[in-house]
Amino acid sequence: MSSLSEVREIIARAQRVLIVSHWMPDGDTLGAALGLAWALRKRGIGARLSCADPVPSEFRFLPGSDAYTVRRKSDEQAILVIDCSDLERIGSIYVAQDFATVPVVNIDHHVTNVLFGDVNLVAERGATAELILDLITYLGLPLDATIAKCLLTGIVTDTIGFRTSNTTADSLRAAITLVEAGASLAEIMDAVFNHRPLAMLRLWGVALANAQHEKDILWVEVSQGLLRRVNADAGAARGLPNLLATFEGPLASVVLRELEDGGVEVSMRSTSDLDVAAVAVALGGGGHARAAGCLLCGSLPEVRERVRAAIRQAIEKRDSSS
Amino acid sequence: MSSLSEVREIIARAQRVLIVSHWMPDGDTLGAALGLAWALRKRGIGARLSCADPVPSEFRFLPGSDAYTVRRKSDEQAILVIDCSDLERIGSIYVAQDFATVPVVNIDHHVTNVLFGDVNLVAERGATAELILDLITYLGLPLDATIAKCLLTGIVTDTIGFRTSNTTADSLRAAITLVEAGASLAEIMDAVFNHRPLAMLRLWGVALANAQHEKDILWVEVSQGLLRRVNADAGAARGLPNLLATFEGPLASVVLRELEDGGVEVSMRSTSDLDVAAVAVALGGGGHARAAGCLLCGSLPEVRERVRAAIRQAIEKRDSSS
Repeated sequence: MSSLSEVREIIARAQRVLIVSHWMPDGDTLGAALGLAWALRKRGIGARLSCADPVPSEFRFLPGSDAYTVRRKSDEQAILVIDCSDLERIGSIYVAQDFATVPVVNIDHHVTNVLFGDVNLVAERGATAELILDLITYLGLPLDATIAKCLLTGIVTDTIGFRTSNTTADSLRAAITLVEAGASLAEIMDAVFNHRPLAMLRLWGVALANAQHEKDILWVEVSQGLLRRVNADAGAARGLPNLLATFEGPLASVVLRELEDGGVEVSMRSTSDLDVAAVAVALGGGGHARAAGCLLCGSLPEVRERVRAAIRQAIEKRDSSS
Repeated sequence: MSSLSEVREIIARAQRVLIVSHWMPDGDTLGAALGLAWALRKRGIGARLSCADPVPSEFRFLPGSDAYTVRRKSDEQAILVIDCSDLERIGSIYVAQDFATVPVVNIDHHVTNVLFGDVNLVAERGATAELILDLITYLGLPLDATIAKCLLTGIVTDTIGFRTSNTTADSLRAAITLVEAGASLAEIMDAVFNHRPLAMLRLWGVALANAQHEKDILWVEVSQGLLRRVNADAGAARGLPNLLATFEGPLASVVLRELEDGGVEVSMRSTSDLDVAAVAVALGGGGHARAAGCLLCGSLPEVRERVRAAIRQAIEKRDSSS
């Protein structure tokens, strides 16, 4: 039995489902989840949306994004977890008892996915939204402009506008299908890439001006002090990892972001054949070969040394095996 | 008779053609011209490439780009001018006598095209490379990976990776055709967008950190002193105007770049309904409503005041008429 048909069976038996996006949500976990929710509602299935963190302002243009809450399962007959390589990614929404009593469907495009679901619709694609489009097509649900807008936003954001190395003709074909269903590519590109807050400009300026390049690694650090100094919130650091990865020279680039309540968010990008997913997994995180991350406890200097050591080790391993 | 069939007639009678790209060449004028050249060679037609300026380093990955020279017509039986709205855009390559003796084919996607050719294959599309793909298909010439790579580079660069407002499903369809013919979207995206020199990172950091936002205008200044301080050449400032235009808040953004031999290059972007082309024209330059520029004599402070006054005036005019 294919994963698609297993998902169909679960959905056929459900009147209500809980759809969960990962914490620190991005355009794919939100767009894919919302696209699926709108499609299921067309079949009369109640779909509730849950996320441990609020929807960032740049994604509030997504139809239905205002319905996200921090919500545990109540009377739903299935839980669909979207764009999460493991259950830690949904934070407080995970409660073992909830997840033991109903079928859990894991829909994700990350290679590091640990297959935590009762059904796992997991495949390497440009975005999880592409898998949702496959599923909607398989279920015979009609596309409309609302669904198309959500899914195209997922594809556009996760492929950084078709720029990532895992963007294939399939991603373009999915995009055309969604444009033909009524999504405006220009509107989504504009919403996603051309509405950066000015606080981001100030933060990026100082962060780039202080970037360090040593031994094949490009580093940027965003401390709580820096955020206060440029009057920016944590969201202003978003985009920095992808921007850093556009510069030539290093094998990998890293953004370390100090969290408010302790710990450091580590975002790694490989600009070479170095596999940062392996580095991330070794540090308790996950992701893709060219884009991965983790959360670590400790101060910025402590985390910096730990991550630097892990990347150095990966570089040495790569050099010795080549 | 359609433009396509007129072009076919001219090509059918030619053993050799001269293909001309515009000065300060970009990825579309180069990729479209090279794609056409490779396709014509398949039919046994000699195709020579000409441009008044050298091919920038970031486009030297295009197959055949090393064959560009500053070349007038010699024994060719036709001149094909690619991606030029008027003949001034080809600079020194234009010699009236040359252009009077053989058919001139004008292939371009700019709405402002003045239809200077004996045949004009002109239509509003995401990129001139899309028109070349139409022509190759019409002529029944087979696509191959080399042609596809050149044309897809044209589309990717001129649509800034499918991000401009004139990117349609047609652009995506053309991209799929080219990917299926052997072009690697990932390779082209990477070549075009992910090889910024580290000097650019240093320059962008300092420039953004010192950006000024006053009265609806966002300003960045790049002096010769700044370039020396961060050890960057003038090319490192490329991309800054488009980057600035991604921030929300100002009505317009401006990059002032001090030139080596005096004078200042002014690059304006509108992030609103403000028409910066009108401002540029008033200052002796030109461009589009959302992206325009000019060259002005004087010191950075002098030019800053002149441009600021012109933009303020345009804003006041806009406000009083709305």
